[in-house]
Amino acid sequence: MDGRKRILLLTTGGTIASLPGGTGLEPHRSDVMERQLGQLRSYFDIEVEDLMCLDSSNMRPAEWQTIARSVFERRLDYDGVVVSHGTDTMAYTASAVTWMLPGIDRPVVFTGSQVPLAEALSDGPDNLSTAFAMAAQGYAGVYLAFDRRVMLGCRAVKVRASGFNAFESVNARYAAQVSNRGLVIDKEALQPQRGPAQLRPEISCDVFLLKLTPGLSPEIFEHLADMGYRGIVIEAFGLGGVNVLHEGLRGIRAALARGVSIVVTTQCLYDASDLGVYQVGRQLLSLGVIQGRDMTSEAAMTKLMWALGQGMAAGHICELFSRNLAGEITVKDERNGQMR
Amino acid sequence: MDGRKRILLLTTGGTIASLPGGTGLEPHRSDVMERQLGQLRSYFDIEVEDLMCLDSSNMRPAEWQTIARSVFERRLDYDGVVVSHGTDTMAYTASAVTWMLPGIDRPVVFTGSQVPLAEALSDGPDNLSTAFAMAAQGYAGVYLAFDRRVMLGCRAVKVRASGFNAFESVNARYAAQVSNRGLVIDKEALQPQRGPAQLRPEISCDVFLLKLTPGLSPEIFEHLADMGYRGIVIEAFGLGGVNVLHEGLRGIRAALARGVSIVVTTQCLYDASDLGVYQVGRQLLSLGVIQGRDMTSEAAMTKLMWALGQGMAAGHICELFSRNLAGEITVKDERNGQMR
Repeated sequence: MDGRKRILLLTTGGTIASLPGGTGLEPHRSDVMERQLGQLRSYFDIEVEDLMCLDSSNMRPAEWQTIARSVFERRLDYDGVVVSHGTDTMAYTASAVTWMLPGIDRPVVFTGSQVPLAEALSDGPDNLSTAFAMAAQGYAGVYLAFDRRVMLGCRAVKVRASGFNAFESVNARYAAQVSNRGLVIDKEALQPQRGPAQLRPEISCDVFLLKLTPGLSPEIFEHLADMGYRGIVIEAFGLGGVNVLHEGLRGIRAALARGVSIVVTTQCLYDASDLGVYQVGRQLLSLGVIQGRDMTSEAAMTKLMWALGQGMAAGHICELFSRNLAGEITVKDERNGQMR
Repeated sequence: MDGRKRILLLTTGGTIASLPGGTGLEPHRSDVMERQLGQLRSYFDIEVEDLMCLDSSNMRPAEWQTIARSVFERRLDYDGVVVSHGTDTMAYTASAVTWMLPGIDRPVVFTGSQVPLAEALSDGPDNLSTAFAMAAQGYAGVYLAFDRRVMLGCRAVKVRASGFNAFESVNARYAAQVSNRGLVIDKEALQPQRGPAQLRPEISCDVFLLKLTPGLSPEIFEHLADMGYRGIVIEAFGLGGVNVLHEGLRGIRAALARGVSIVVTTQCLYDASDLGVYQVGRQLLSLGVIQGRDMTSEAAMTKLMWALGQGMAAGHICELFSRNLAGEITVKDERNGQMR
């Protein structure tokens, strides 16, 4: 033993491992990453497993389960796990895997790149280095590393379609940042391990993300219930505004009566929804909708999908959304009104 | 004539004119704004008309038409128009009114606030001052003024649910900023007037905003067509990624065959969608979907609603989305690949 950390790299495809094909960039397997992995092997003992080879636009909940299961089953032989992934849906996957692995006892770090590793000016080498450094640090949890910053997976949002600073930690501090002093961890941003580690991959696809627009017909709620959706995450306006005049509440009331769980978040990127402030929001609370608070849409969607997949009843789901599982919500200290 | 500018203030409700009610903040009429208007009357000749009194969550396309019609019919008696509005849907209204008033020949400046004018630490006074200053400057167009910055209405997005810097000019420079030198206009950010001024308020409500999530069933497209939607704006992943494996394209193809116009934008806040880069995107282009380029979702939604309201056929709509009407898209200079 020379003290070098053992890191497992699970690859899933994505831009980082893409090469030009006849009809645009196509994802490949880890062979196209080998040059960069050669560099990283100077610092880490690395094993690689190619799990799948997908443009992350095509990643589904079934693939989230494959990733979570692989991490869970193989983690004990390693100090940490890095998952390379397309950027498009990486925030969804990192959030979903967070719920599927409660009490995870290893660092699990998602990363990818905006430009393929095969290109000279790729951001891939930088992102891989950051991810491996975080995976070697020993802080258990699910993270996403990008552009020299590490964030909780359940706080990550892809905010830029092409810029290198593609991901932001929304409504939460970064877990770590690369500086001239190396990877500087912000211990206040980390979450305590709530062990023991479990694999709970069951997840439901019957959740719809409804981003409100002015004039939206309230009939949509009943149509979604008819289509078999058991959960709806509403991206409402501002602090949680929903069209309540013009019969907008009627549809929500009907969906709730049919047992659909409804979570309200905001379509604003930053800040929390808070239904207690405006008349419109209080009407929603009185009907039984669940507050998404300051969760990202990605976290709220996947948390509701997971809650339904775990077979939780409506009351249990409501309670689950009031609890911070992995840093996804800021718990308000009622005594002094401050966030902590 | 003393050279003072004549400004028309149209009020529509919103937080800026709210007072605490029994069930949360409730919008009121301009009487609650009078103290601040008294200050502004030192600099401007102001007339006020209360158009409506709504929490902007409840603003519909019918109200957009009322605002556009009032601006159009009354503008000639004034140097500029300010519209006070709730923040929640102000970006949608400012975009929609932009399309309804082609060739507008006066400044029309939307503003509002995060904290009611009735409170001591309100951002309302600042925002009103900025809006009135912009309305008095003579640069025709539809703008949104907030937190000492002025942006094109069709580039505005509400990015913060509660912060004072609630609005950003997405993928475009600010039109003006307040500094110690007063309101500094960035003339390169302004748009040329494409006259003559017209009122074209017809707009369709049959457009649905579909924010993709992993695992979304492709059946949604046919259901939306069944429900009578004639337009769909897809907030896709990253540069425009759409789940195309697992039959995701089937639904899109079926909706297109039924005459539904489909515009693809990105769910990332910043940067343009570009379907030409990845295999997945090129398949969409070949089917006939329209690229949203670097438009905001608010602009893309309202532009499609307006195009359908104007009775445009699918081919005409496709052409309309390739053209910059009011600064809503960055036109790419094909010769050198630079944006301008």
